[in-house]
Amino acid sequence: MTDKVETGGAATLPDIQKTPDTRNIAIDKVGVRGVKFPISVLDRANERQHTIGNFTLTVDLPAEFKGTHMSRFLEALNAAGREISVTSLPSLLHDMTERLHARQAHVDVVFPFFVEKRAPVTGQSGMMEFTCGFSAEGNGKFDIELMVQAPVATLCPCSKEISDYGAHNQRGVVTVKLRSNDHIWLEEIIDVIEASASCALFPVLKRPDEKWVTERAYENPRFVEDVIREVAVRLDSDSRVTGYEIEVENHESIHAHNAYAWLRREK
Amino acid sequence: MTDKVETGGAATLPDIQKTPDTRNIAIDKVGVRGVKFPISVLDRANERQHTIGNFTLTVDLPAEFKGTHMSRFLEALNAAGREISVTSLPSLLHDMTERLHARQAHVDVVFPFFVEKRAPVTGQSGMMEFTCGFSAEGNGKFDIELMVQAPVATLCPCSKEISDYGAHNQRGVVTVKLRSNDHIWLEEIIDVIEASASCALFPVLKRPDEKWVTERAYENPRFVEDVIREVAVRLDSDSRVTGYEIEVENHESIHAHNAYAWLRREK
Amino acid sequence: MTDKVETGGAATLPDIQKTPDTRNIAIDKVGVRGVKFPISVLDRANERQHTIGNFTLTVDLPAEFKGTHMSRFLEALNAAGREISVTSLPSLLHDMTERLHARQAHVDVVFPFFVEKRAPVTGQSGMMEFTCGFSAEGNGKFDIELMVQAPVATLCPCSKEISDYGAHNQRGVVTVKLRSNDHIWLEEIIDVIEASASCALFPVLKRPDEKWVTERAYENPRFVEDVIREVAVRLDSDSRVTGYEIEVENHESIHAHNAYAWLRREK
Amino acid sequence: MTDKVETGGAATLPDIQKTPDTRNIAIDKVGVRGVKFPISVLDRANERQHTIGNFTLTVDLPAEFKGTHMSRFLEALNAAGREISVTSLPSLLHDMTERLHARQAHVDVVFPFFVEKRAPVTGQSGMMEFTCGFSAEGNGKFDIELMVQAPVATLCPCSKEISDYGAHNQRGVVTVKLRSNDHIWLEEIIDVIEASASCALFPVLKRPDEKWVTERAYENPRFVEDVIREVAVRLDSDSRVTGYEIEVENHESIHAHNAYAWLRREK
Repeated sequence: MTDKVETGGAATLPDIQKTPDTRNIAIDKVGVRGVKFPISVLDRANERQHTIGNFTLTVDLPAEFKGTHMSRFLEALNAAGREISVTSLPSLLHDMTERLHARQAHVDVVFPFFVEKRAPVTGQSGMMEFTCGFSAEGNGKFDIELMVQAPVATLCPCSKEISDYGAHNQRGVVTVKLRSNDHIWLEEIIDVIEASASCALFPVLKRPDEKWVTERAYENPRFVEDVIREVAVRLDSDSRVTGYEIEVENHESIHAHNAYAWLRREK
Repeated sequence: MTDKVETGGAATLPDIQKTPDTRNIAIDKVGVRGVKFPISVLDRANERQHTIGNFTLTVDLPAEFKGTHMSRFLEALNAAGREISVTSLPSLLHDMTERLHARQAHVDVVFPFFVEKRAPVTGQSGMMEFTCGFSAEGNGKFDIELMVQAPVATLCPCSKEISDYGAHNQRGVVTVKLRSNDHIWLEEIIDVIEASASCALFPVLKRPDEKWVTERAYENPRFVEDVIREVAVRLDSDSRVTGYEIEVENHESIHAHNAYAWLRREK
Repeated sequence: MTDKVETGGAATLPDIQKTPDTRNIAIDKVGVRGVKFPISVLDRANERQHTIGNFTLTVDLPAEFKGTHMSRFLEALNAAGREISVTSLPSLLHDMTERLHARQAHVDVVFPFFVEKRAPVTGQSGMMEFTCGFSAEGNGKFDIELMVQAPVATLCPCSKEISDYGAHNQRGVVTVKLRSNDHIWLEEIIDVIEASASCALFPVLKRPDEKWVTERAYENPRFVEDVIREVAVRLDSDSRVTGYEIEVENHESIHAHNAYAWLRREK
Repeated sequence: MTDKVETGGAATLPDIQKTPDTRNIAIDKVGVRGVKFPISVLDRANERQHTIGNFTLTVDLPAEFKGTHMSRFLEALNAAGREISVTSLPSLLHDMTERLHARQAHVDVVFPFFVEKRAPVTGQSGMMEFTCGFSAEGNGKFDIELMVQAPVATLCPCSKEISDYGAHNQRGVVTVKLRSNDHIWLEEIIDVIEASASCALFPVLKRPDEKWVTERAYENPRFVEDVIREVAVRLDSDSRVTGYEIEVENHESIHAHNAYAWLRREK
């Protein structure tokens, strides 16, 4: 689907999208999804890093118009340039409402985010990937949500308590979405998640490091219920955070299904 | 994670989950996810069909308890038997609140659902799969949502209008979630979705059928905006429907990204 | 894409697929993919179980023909009925070569397969899902491969050895593909895989069971290298097995990446 | 799993992986999978582009050793730096065989690759993503395979021929893997794929462009059989190409399943 004509010869092509619609149904969100675009994002250690965004861009559509002009979302994204941050999103939202004559605009972007991590004993360095994102909507005022999804290790408190030796542990995935009244680094949210688990994961571990992470997880048993509460306690005590949603999913190493916890809070 | 002891010898195993928690954080939902279970569901044509459910089962956890008892969710599912329907879900929800001493319980299940479909001209028969589901929550009263996801064909009205011949078309996916005050068959929702697109899809098409579906799609051009409005108009006029959410995603055959529309209504 | 005309009025529709092709390129495999179809498969405990197959059906296409007749694959599948087994596949392959005038036919089907499993101490029962499949090709003689993918628990021998307490463990996935000269139950392959890991997974575990599986895994540490060799040793000693391929992927609970091993043998 | 000790205090940690194994099973490939790492790759238009690799790194393991040293794969990747190309892969393979005392090493990497594309009439520019990759193995000599996966539009020749107006078309995905005796740009393979389809896809299309792509697809009907043969003819005529494998999968807009073709050739 495309829109207004820009070349002379084609100037008489009709604009179907602008024709009136009589069904009297306004649409909450209409736009494009699965748009991949190379971006750079802010990074506490290196100022910025190159990554790849997967975008959903939408606006509201009043009841009286038949369709939106899909190509303008891509034009807005191209015009925004490749630097995407919490501070640049309001102007992209504003540009979308202008180009599409809309009252409300939404940008969702998810991207891989790399952090250099050092092994806890040997200090060996490597890159570890987290899935991060921004979700922004604007209609005059702007509301932006950060998203961080981080894999962690969890060790079962019950298994540790009842067993003569060992304790089942596994990879879990913690997802935090939050809104704030001041700048928060994605790396800060990663730190909160990792501190709430039995142990963080690392890209490179030599034997002394493996001994360290094994013993640390054993010393810090955590149910999904513990992980979600530990994250909540930390976010509650951060005055910049104004609301959040947390999800923890443990890939149980004793079951083929997952243990799961979810909560949402407004402050 | 497991719970109460049932065999003599192990009778002294401690119950860590029951120990008190001092962080003062109630958890909205805690339970199991990704539980696969063979089920049968109601089917308009054949009374019932065998399929496979992917379940998420959760309850609320008050602030004062350290953990829930994960194995009891599986026991509740086993006890419910393999017949899952809108009418059997309240007793599963009730059983979960009893077994887990919870105030609120949630069941989400998604399953493949097959409908026999006949080709429009030759009448050749085949099976076509739709992704369906139920989402139920209960705390005294029960709230149940049906979900149907159906693939359809959409043909672009703009492309048809501006081109001397042809028109781009593609597979799209329409997802409807709805609540109702009376029984609605999953097949009825499939019918609503298919009637709202440029053309339905079919498992088997011979040449006269292919001519028919090609011409029918060309005669019924639909943007994602049209499809979502056509579905909304049909649901608005059905007095059993008390609320709904619709999502349409077109796998555009001229772009690598998708066209997208979403709306939600309470009646 | 469709094929021969079966109704009177449409009898003059041309058959584009049968027109000659001058590019002189024979195609190894052409057909349909992602065909979902309700099936039942043989089951050691209950004779048969209902499940859902995801099929790829292909034939070879000689250089001289422009196209194959795609709808005939669906007709062959419908005609085969819903009972799919190692013994019924040759007739489906034969039917495909007849309907499509082909020399060679291929059927790949993957399906969820459920086994009732009892907890090791309390005997509590539940259903556990495995991903299984058949891959068959025929051109006069028939060659059939079984596939079983089973999740297991693995506990790291290095972590156990070097740590003062605990040992990291995790969910791993083992995939076995094998050819045989005699009947082998899918459940037999599942047994081989589970016996080769640190411990099997279970759908329902009460506290005494959880103690048992925790301690058992700790007593049986296994690298991916150990698991793959244990499976290989068992398959080598089974005279029915004529060839196999094994893949083990551990979702390491200390890393965000996986440990991996693969081997293939002809006997 | 980790390996040799590098810090003083831990110097007595045993090396379990080096202990002898008596099962007498050599393993074809053992290593790490799902390793995400930021890389840059060569780019015809801009010299290089930043992207994100998903790596599988493996070596063979002789029968006499219990395990490989998993952390050394990550060290080899870190040492290789972030510039990954066909010319840099041999030294990574060589380094892996050295660090792991192996005879054979394998590197598989898949990454998103962006190409700036201009709309065919208005020249409007945007970024389009392709999935690309390298697969390399080395044991003295090096064998490298390029992979390109590109989405395209296909319009059904049968549907066009038999219908009074319109023709069903859809998004298809073409995957080419090839070996060569000289440098080939990823963009050249993309060009081959796009030229073999009914029409290429574009990130931004205004109305005159949409008219152009609609009519062009209608003028160039292609079955999956045609697309695969067109790609094969072009690769056959390129003397640099020494072997290839092609897969075409059409997301049929008249069916819920896909049309599929596959072939492999050695030259």
